[in-house]
Amino acid sequence: MTEPKSYKWFLDYLSPFEGHMHGIDTVVFSKQTQFQQVEILDTKSYGRCLVLDGKMQSSEVDEFIYHEALVHPAMFTHPEPKKVFIVGGGEGATLREILRHRSVERVLMVDIDQEVVESCKRHLPQWHQGSFDDPRAEVRYLDARKYLEETTDTYDIIIIDISEPVEEGPAYLLYTKEFYSLVMERLTSGGIISLQAGTTAATSLLNFSAVYQTLRTVFPVVSPYQAPIPSFGLPWGFALASKRFDPRALDEKEIDRRISQRLERELKYYDGETHVGQFFLPKQVRIQMEKQERIIEDNYPLFTYH
Amino acid sequence: MTEPKSYKWFLDYLSPFEGHMHGIDTVVFSKQTQFQQVEILDTKSYGRCLVLDGKMQSSEVDEFIYHEALVHPAMFTHPEPKKVFIVGGGEGATLREILRHRSVERVLMVDIDQEVVESCKRHLPQWHQGSFDDPRAEVRYLDARKYLEETTDTYDIIIIDISEPVEEGPAYLLYTKEFYSLVMERLTSGGIISLQAGTTAATSLLNFSAVYQTLRTVFPVVSPYQAPIPSFGLPWGFALASKRFDPRALDEKEIDRRISQRLERELKYYDGETHVGQFFLPKQVRIQMEKQERIIEDNYPLFTYH
Amino acid sequence: MTEPKSYKWFLDYLSPFEGHMHGIDTVVFSKQTQFQQVEILDTKSYGRCLVLDGKMQSSEVDEFIYHEALVHPAMFTHPEPKKVFIVGGGEGATLREILRHRSVERVLMVDIDQEVVESCKRHLPQWHQGSFDDPRAEVRYLDARKYLEETTDTYDIIIIDISEPVEEGPAYLLYTKEFYSLVMERLTSGGIISLQAGTTAATSLLNFSAVYQTLRTVFPVVSPYQAPIPSFGLPWGFALASKRFDPRALDEKEIDRRISQRLERELKYYDGETHVGQFFLPKQVRIQMEKQERIIEDNYPLFTYH
Amino acid sequence: MTEPKSYKWFLDYLSPFEGHMHGIDTVVFSKQTQFQQVEILDTKSYGRCLVLDGKMQSSEVDEFIYHEALVHPAMFTHPEPKKVFIVGGGEGATLREILRHRSVERVLMVDIDQEVVESCKRHLPQWHQGSFDDPRAEVRYLDARKYLEETTDTYDIIIIDISEPVEEGPAYLLYTKEFYSLVMERLTSGGIISLQAGTTAATSLLNFSAVYQTLRTVFPVVSPYQAPIPSFGLPWGFALASKRFDPRALDEKEIDRRISQRLERELKYYDGETHVGQFFLPKQVRIQMEKQERIIEDNYPLFTYH
Repeated sequence: MTEPKSYKWFLDYLSPFEGHMHGIDTVVFSKQTQFQQVEILDTKSYGRCLVLDGKMQSSEVDEFIYHEALVHPAMFTHPEPKKVFIVGGGEGATLREILRHRSVERVLMVDIDQEVVESCKRHLPQWHQGSFDDPRAEVRYLDARKYLEETTDTYDIIIIDISEPVEEGPAYLLYTKEFYSLVMERLTSGGIISLQAGTTAATSLLNFSAVYQTLRTVFPVVSPYQAPIPSFGLPWGFALASKRFDPRALDEKEIDRRISQRLERELKYYDGETHVGQFFLPKQVRIQMEKQERIIEDNYPLFTYH
Repeated sequence: MTEPKSYKWFLDYLSPFEGHMHGIDTVVFSKQTQFQQVEILDTKSYGRCLVLDGKMQSSEVDEFIYHEALVHPAMFTHPEPKKVFIVGGGEGATLREILRHRSVERVLMVDIDQEVVESCKRHLPQWHQGSFDDPRAEVRYLDARKYLEETTDTYDIIIIDISEPVEEGPAYLLYTKEFYSLVMERLTSGGIISLQAGTTAATSLLNFSAVYQTLRTVFPVVSPYQAPIPSFGLPWGFALASKRFDPRALDEKEIDRRISQRLERELKYYDGETHVGQFFLPKQVRIQMEKQERIIEDNYPLFTYH
Repeated sequence: MTEPKSYKWFLDYLSPFEGHMHGIDTVVFSKQTQFQQVEILDTKSYGRCLVLDGKMQSSEVDEFIYHEALVHPAMFTHPEPKKVFIVGGGEGATLREILRHRSVERVLMVDIDQEVVESCKRHLPQWHQGSFDDPRAEVRYLDARKYLEETTDTYDIIIIDISEPVEEGPAYLLYTKEFYSLVMERLTSGGIISLQAGTTAATSLLNFSAVYQTLRTVFPVVSPYQAPIPSFGLPWGFALASKRFDPRALDEKEIDRRISQRLERELKYYDGETHVGQFFLPKQVRIQMEKQERIIEDNYPLFTYH
Repeated sequence: MTEPKSYKWFLDYLSPFEGHMHGIDTVVFSKQTQFQQVEILDTKSYGRCLVLDGKMQSSEVDEFIYHEALVHPAMFTHPEPKKVFIVGGGEGATLREILRHRSVERVLMVDIDQEVVESCKRHLPQWHQGSFDDPRAEVRYLDARKYLEETTDTYDIIIIDISEPVEEGPAYLLYTKEFYSLVMERLTSGGIISLQAGTTAATSLLNFSAVYQTLRTVFPVVSPYQAPIPSFGLPWGFALASKRFDPRALDEKEIDRRISQRLERELKYYDGETHVGQFFLPKQVRIQMEKQERIIEDNYPLFTYH
């Protein structure tokens, strides 16, 4: 057998009966904020990690997969994204990926938890890479839903980069039909959103498939996709939803062409081949998604692990 | 946080610093055979599981993904597979998937560990589903490499379904250039092999990429691919290697057409869309694979976790 | 570091922040009864173990310490125990120790959970060693408190051998002032009771000290004591309460004399030296016990870990 | 069941098949020194802890038990200890307890690992409480055995406060007959030593009983004793060995009298009752100790967990 060499472990429970174990070197930061337990850990396999309420959010070693997968399919599907809104996005890496696009003129990031953002600014420099100082970027510490309800601004792209909907956490009202309808209203005419949508593991497809069906009640184009993020311990799903543009209409060459036109540098995870491949889901996932009838609503929210 | 509800756990160490935790109900079977520690566990998330030397081999809930992904890409890429050889294949599920193909006339499975096969026969009926009794199937308990060295028989398809190459385990000499050359010699003119090739996680691509490069020193066509098998705790890789036929030349429709022609029933994981999608690897995986220079040889074997 | 060699573990949580880990070989038996989750595990360090609601009850390797420590201080303090009552006692080992005493004429064991007793009878023969077949023994499957309320029988010794008072468990009303008063009424004039009373660890003395003070509101003689039971993971406490006889009045020689007179064979853990030594508690334990003001009542019960 | 509320754990493996789990808040300090891995952790149940090579050494909550149990039985058994030598003693708490004695004129502490001592000085102020600055104290960073071989100084008391003898660790040559003979030669005529001697758990008495028998080949008086230190996860043993004075000759009153004469303040764990009680060992421990024939020698050392 493989013999464990660590005696300090972070146990990331994926459900009450399953978890992923990370040997840890040290606890860089730990604090209970008004909204959640935030921790920054140095792990042996994945380097520095952000953990919220005991769940891995992103790791030094593979955050590039998560953030590139979250941001670029939407950005490159849009012909010329100028105004971008981020719901959540604490680490600043979603901001970083958006700002790579030359077309972007303004990014507004609204995260409810200032303490999380500030601890990320300080302890996760490899994530934000100075993005918070970009003159195109602005950060506000508010309830993103309330902000979107009150503003009349519209955006070309809205990226929803939040943790999973747990009962006591700040995120569950950002996964409902009502919220997606609001987001739709704040999009410009060719607007696109993307979001992480939970695991695509066969054992727990409820969240992913219900988010998919809920988005379909609001958006004409909904494209679920997945990316392998090893530190998450399970295969992971995302969804792109759009008023008009369909990401599956773009082939490898077109994506590669757009990358070379719009960015200064190549990416690490995302290119034309990755773009096209990510929309292929295993047959049983497709079937379960189509069969799903659960619609998530404010009065009927969905909590993971319940 | 998610609160664990189990107090009995199987800890599957993926490396000395990382593991996947499975809450267990019971230990169905446990024995140290001449070759390895074999265990059959009932877990809470994945049902019954086969564990060899402390490593998850396949689970009731998602073994269909592993076995369909291992078997069908090779089988459907071949125009008419009649004779098939399995290296290893203890659970009998690889045999099961092969026997679904009407064209198959004979399958020889050679597994070194009779006690593993017999415990699978007894305790994993959902895996083999009676395949061992199929008149086209034969099982021998021998060193598969030695058998292939001594036989002059040839096969259309050879499936290598073995555990990972650990120092004390029975498998590491089945991952070398010399073994792949031998396998190549035992193929018919359009012959194809496939094998599981370890995780595709960014943190530990050595095995997957070295197997890829080693296969390329022997076979003209080598197609690495991946499948998400949640119970493994990490994204997982496979490789198809072929004398002539290229799996990437087949589109979704052609695969779906062959499935409907050759099988009595549809599959659960694999279809045309799955076939095409599985060969798309993330950019950083492709780059690391191409850069890999390590060739695995009998005198320079590769052990995982060392 | 010490490298763990097991990958199957029973985690015995002693509190939400502390636990004891046991490498397991197999799960011999597992069932949710009407009252509790019962499990019989074979562990690598302590052999076979009984686990109720996830908590170690007794192990093959050191159950003799627990059961001798629970039974004999009371039995040998009494001049001639004839009639004995056991509250709980599922494994049958408390019964076994009582029956060693030649003076004993009748033992009535009342355990609420027939399924626990029957699984112990079947799977823990080294515990009961046939005691259930002794003509002096009788077992009834009832609520012991209700039974004692309704009977008018009296006993020389009452042994309370139950699991810890957890909120959802069957035991918490057997730890109250009202229950101890009832027990007192069912004792003969020189009657003695003994019970396990939770850990004596400095970090969690509430249960032990509150049981002590609660007993003192009912009994004239209360003697707390402790025994080291390695499989419990923490130092463990007991209490003897008595209408008249004081165990601390008996010196080593007198206990050794009584052992040789009353038993056929010597014991493994308990003798005169053990008897005298067990009543010496560390200074800080004594101080905390005396300072404790919590009295456990039916309307104000105490739950461990709450 | 008790539900764990921590997701960061320190796993203290007591053997390859047993461990004690501590929920951790943070890693205060972590370093591989020339001799060992040193870590200072803040745990949820035991506060700050010193961990060497993955093993708990002492915790904020119960270090007073360990250090009072290690130091005072020897100190109070001696009629007037003036010169004291500490082998090891990194945390400075052994020094602290010795310096409480008014009779002490000089304490020399020789610890091989300056980095451990300095990290304790900085991060464990509650342990040393400024003892390193006491004018009677001196610390040298040397191999204590080599130092004792080369010096001709003699001491009234020698306290051996070292970690367990593991194969790769610095301590195993401080557990042999040769070392104890050397220590004996460096004692004044009424000299006494004491040391921690490993667990007294029934499952792993080898170390404790072999240390006892090895000491008996050297010293005329050897008194093994135990103390319950909850954070260690198992009952723990010590030994006092003496040229002349016998600790068991002192009754509770005499110890209490000496405490009030010699110290300015009372202790927390140790008093007359604790002193007398600690020498009572359970019967099976006594028997196994007397039967033990293993003598630990330089050429035949003993390693725990092998």
